[in-house]
Amino acid sequence: MDLSPLLEWLAIPSVSTDPARKEDVRRAALWLEERLKALGFRTELHETPLHPILYAERLLEGAPTVLVYGHYDVQPPDPLELWETPPFSPTVREGRLYARGASDDKGQLFAHVAALEGLEAPVSIKFLVEGEEEIGSPSLLPFVRANRERLKADAVLISDGAMFAPGVPTLTYGLRGLCYLEVRLFGARRDLHSGAFGGVAPNPIQALGWILARLKDEGTGKVLIPGFYEKVRPVPQEEKALWPALDEEALKRELGVEVLPGEEGYGPLERLWARPTLDPNGVWGGYQGEGSKTVIPKEAGMKLSLRLVPDQDPEEVAELAEAHLRALLPPGYRLEVKRLHGGKPVLTDPFSPPMRLMAKALEEVWGRPPVYAREGGTIPVVAELKEALGAPIVLLGLGLPDDNLHAPNEKLDLVNLEKGVAAIRRFYELLAASPA
Amino acid sequence: MDLSPLLEWLAIPSVSTDPARKEDVRRAALWLEERLKALGFRTELHETPLHPILYAERLLEGAPTVLVYGHYDVQPPDPLELWETPPFSPTVREGRLYARGASDDKGQLFAHVAALEGLEAPVSIKFLVEGEEEIGSPSLLPFVRANRERLKADAVLISDGAMFAPGVPTLTYGLRGLCYLEVRLFGARRDLHSGAFGGVAPNPIQALGWILARLKDEGTGKVLIPGFYEKVRPVPQEEKALWPALDEEALKRELGVEVLPGEEGYGPLERLWARPTLDPNGVWGGYQGEGSKTVIPKEAGMKLSLRLVPDQDPEEVAELAEAHLRALLPPGYRLEVKRLHGGKPVLTDPFSPPMRLMAKALEEVWGRPPVYAREGGTIPVVAELKEALGAPIVLLGLGLPDDNLHAPNEKLDLVNLEKGVAAIRRFYELLAASPA
Repeated sequence: MDLSPLLEWLAIPSVSTDPARKEDVRRAALWLEERLKALGFRTELHETPLHPILYAERLLEGAPTVLVYGHYDVQPPDPLELWETPPFSPTVREGRLYARGASDDKGQLFAHVAALEGLEAPVSIKFLVEGEEEIGSPSLLPFVRANRERLKADAVLISDGAMFAPGVPTLTYGLRGLCYLEVRLFGARRDLHSGAFGGVAPNPIQALGWILARLKDEGTGKVLIPGFYEKVRPVPQEEKALWPALDEEALKRELGVEVLPGEEGYGPLERLWARPTLDPNGVWGGYQGEGSKTVIPKEAGMKLSLRLVPDQDPEEVAELAEAHLRALLPPGYRLEVKRLHGGKPVLTDPFSPPMRLMAKALEEVWGRPPVYAREGGTIPVVAELKEALGAPIVLLGLGLPDDNLHAPNEKLDLVNLEKGVAAIRRFYELLAASPA
Repeated sequence: MDLSPLLEWLAIPSVSTDPARKEDVRRAALWLEERLKALGFRTELHETPLHPILYAERLLEGAPTVLVYGHYDVQPPDPLELWETPPFSPTVREGRLYARGASDDKGQLFAHVAALEGLEAPVSIKFLVEGEEEIGSPSLLPFVRANRERLKADAVLISDGAMFAPGVPTLTYGLRGLCYLEVRLFGARRDLHSGAFGGVAPNPIQALGWILARLKDEGTGKVLIPGFYEKVRPVPQEEKALWPALDEEALKRELGVEVLPGEEGYGPLERLWARPTLDPNGVWGGYQGEGSKTVIPKEAGMKLSLRLVPDQDPEEVAELAEAHLRALLPPGYRLEVKRLHGGKPVLTDPFSPPMRLMAKALEEVWGRPPVYAREGGTIPVVAELKEALGAPIVLLGLGLPDDNLHAPNEKLDLVNLEKGVAAIRRFYELLAASPA
């Protein structure tokens, strides 16, 4: 399979969260538009306040219709110094393709483009591709609502996730949601000398510590935001029976840890797939340089994300979290909370007709039936597509849990890219042959 | 008074903690050496592994001898964007001189140099000036121990502190000590996607929060390190009677706060001068950029300082703190503690003969007697000079509490510089005239 077009696409640093990369994000959209045009698609680039939405369609009267969703934007590459090869200089080593976006999501989306080369099965195909997935899809959600009719399909096909394990084809039927906050704490009006003022000055770093300790319980791993667990739907026993076994020892080895810390009373797989979590994703304040500086900083801050499960709502959780943060604020401090983005959790039918067809295609290509899994990550548009279009959704992850998503040395195993292309093509053939 | 030499000196960015500034630190030493040579001093530049120690002497047979201590290094200027004029472009505005080092300590040390211009009183003067004060004086302490005899003096004179308030000449008789640690926490072996791993992964930022919350009690402001307060010497009632009154409302206005948070059961002045404290001075981890990145970082860290009072010992406190940090470490994390620097607390005799002479000089120049104060900051060499030389120590602060030490827009009020020069000159005259 010819990787050169994908290498070219991955070389474009389409970091959607970085205002300095706006033009690069656009270039990545135009690159895909050209590619789809060459495959006979009619394309439309929809401008938004941030990054354009690419819609493309290749329709066949009377044929079943599939809507493919993906995103051409990527996470920031920091910390740069930890990459073995530069994030935007795609490199193949030992059967793996290394680059920011290799797995999330350009590489996986590319499989859907490559699957169309020489495809003869009569199917109508629509592509809906955004450049704001990594920042919460703010433009795509209203676009989907406004374009229900045009986006209509018999199945929605999405590859923006991971297989359960190497060699195990996986169909995903659930995703967690997300609520992402930026929290800033302010103390004195200026930075202070810790000798001259230590003992009377508010210290926002210390206050951040007090707050963090009361956001998540150290002993039980429970999130301490009042009301947080109220809408969490328990997992029925028959659903758990579907789940594959998690190799905890392998996971520990992979992460380089001796324990898998998490919420008391739940196993690791349930904690990853069906329990909500809270994690600070960044923290800053005061002096971070070499050596020592005896300063009491006037402010400190953190990024905080909560992964949500059905039926938690990102807006509601943001309200609860903000109220709790305000309640925890010690006297003498000021607090600012910014809601950066959110996404609803979603559950789909694991045995819908297109899921059954994809299961068959996967079994033919991999030589074993797929496992059924939820995923801990979030694709904000999936809940929206489910609500707006009412079509069955097929989540086909082609990545792997060790793909270093959102981390240095992101990669995609080429064997999964190749088998993915074959499975997607076979899916179209099965769909074209199935009774309407 | 001619400020141009001082402006020239302040323009040299002698940041001792920054390896990239090594040559600049040296230039600042050489600048002072030239200046003292021009005043008839015999000078010696002593090389150390980091920044040179400048020793200079101008001796008169039979005259009383004064040792002047100061430092030519400065704190880092970050955050740069908050300076109204650049930190190393000294600027005079409304009777104040703005520059990094204007008050701490080049400006104050310059007063001691300027006081010698045209001085006729017969006194022997020695200068001991280092470039490592802001990083804990690692070279100076052994130097003092090894050179006791040469450094011998009838009084040690130091200006590296602040007056109690504007217009209030101040003699300082106590300083807090310092124990400064860098703490780093490690979780998984690599950065992780918070969706794919949130629920099973250690989060070093969260763990830092749990630890911070158990280093200092939110309710009482007490440091929670076991044994921390054991050697703290209570302040006798008669000493407190010496203390000036603190204008708490003015301090709150200055800091822009509504409360002065601190240790329960002690007034603000006692907390600043005679109670130990703990303050995180920096914190970092994960994503700090614009927007959102859903990462669980593999590590996080903080800088932590403890201000100490008699009879706490920095080494002992570092042991206690490190043991407590290790005890607080949740399972699944690894901890690294680096001791960056320390300094012993010190108390001197407020009514020694040279202190009495300086009190007289101050009263003549300012038209009011000085107040007697302790200071919350640390000058590591003072305890060492006291022990090694046994000479009375005169701490004459010419700065002010709002000088923005270790913060943006550091400044020195020129009126204090000028009166300081006059008082120091008058002190030498009184000393020369006093019976041996």
